[in-house]
Amino acid sequence: MVKRPMVRQFLEDAFAGESKAHMKYLIFAENAEKSGNINLAKMWRAIAHAEFTHARNHFKALGYLGTNGENLKASLDGENFEIEEMYPAYNVVSELQNEKEALRSIHFAIEAEKIHSSMYKDAIEKIEKNDDLDEKEIYICNVCGYTTEDSLPEKCPVCGAGKDNFVKF
Amino acid sequence: MVKRPMVRQFLEDAFAGESKAHMKYLIFAENAEKSGNINLAKMWRAIAHAEFTHARNHFKALGYLGTNGENLKASLDGENFEIEEMYPAYNVVSELQNEKEALRSIHFAIEAEKIHSSMYKDAIEKIEKNDDLDEKEIYICNVCGYTTEDSLPEKCPVCGAGKDNFVKF
Repeated sequence: MVKRPMVRQFLEDAFAGESKAHMKYLIFAENAEKSGNINLAKMWRAIAHAEFTHARNHFKALGYLGTNGENLKASLDGENFEIEEMYPAYNVVSELQNEKEALRSIHFAIEAEKIHSSMYKDAIEKIEKNDDLDEKEIYICNVCGYTTEDSLPEKCPVCGAGKDNFVKF
Repeated sequence: MVKRPMVRQFLEDAFAGESKAHMKYLIFAENAEKSGNINLAKMWRAIAHAEFTHARNHFKALGYLGTNGENLKASLDGENFEIEEMYPAYNVVSELQNEKEALRSIHFAIEAEKIHSSMYKDAIEKIEKNDDLDEKEIYICNVCGYTTEDSLPEKCPVCGAGKDNFVKF
């Protein structure tokens, strides 16, 4: 594990940089698919995977990859920070400045993060007793990120998108 | 598009936060798959997709999603920043402090980013003449991110991993 503070900070920044590059390429790939540019989209998806390996190597060098239980706890802490600290602060300023597109984007995120927090909390309990979670299907709204482990809804309860917009895992 | 500077800064930070959460969940999912926890891995992959939608919504609210050509230029600029500015700075400090794990992780990244820069440069030229790129296979080393459009190599020329470690796109 990397020890020196300056190099640790650089690897933190490189992890953020690679994560953002990875995300941008996935967004660009989705956009290229919509315009029918399949091979261009494939290039972005391939390079995004390369950025995944870089981010993962930096993350491991920082000593952040734990056991499944530790990783669930880190996931839960991240979601709770977003729900309790980050998004409420961003939301109140967006209201003050009447930035409607930000309010929409923040609302979508916070509603999904509440569900994720609850899923991680449940998973921590289950993993303590069993090796793995029960097998079940998970549906994600591709518009707003609404997440449900029940059946595919007719329309998204958060953004109203039809069921064709859901991605099944 | 969001105009006010404070809300724009918040959305930038939220884009970074969602991108990092997305990346962590993919890393945790890969790790859970290695330990045979398939359903736990699936939950992380599903929630990672929800975080993708949030990051994409923030990115669009910031007005950053362009045409395919503009997105290629943004991709090229990002890779060139990493090759010319970011990683050489991180590398020389990691050498000064003899942080071997950081040197390895940075070396892997910079070697791949050089190839990505060249691929984006070629793609910008091709997209100006045609709608899409030519169809070809792309291989990514899952250890170091080495990227090649030729045939599957016997072993990775950057990290030495065997051909079984390559992911085909």
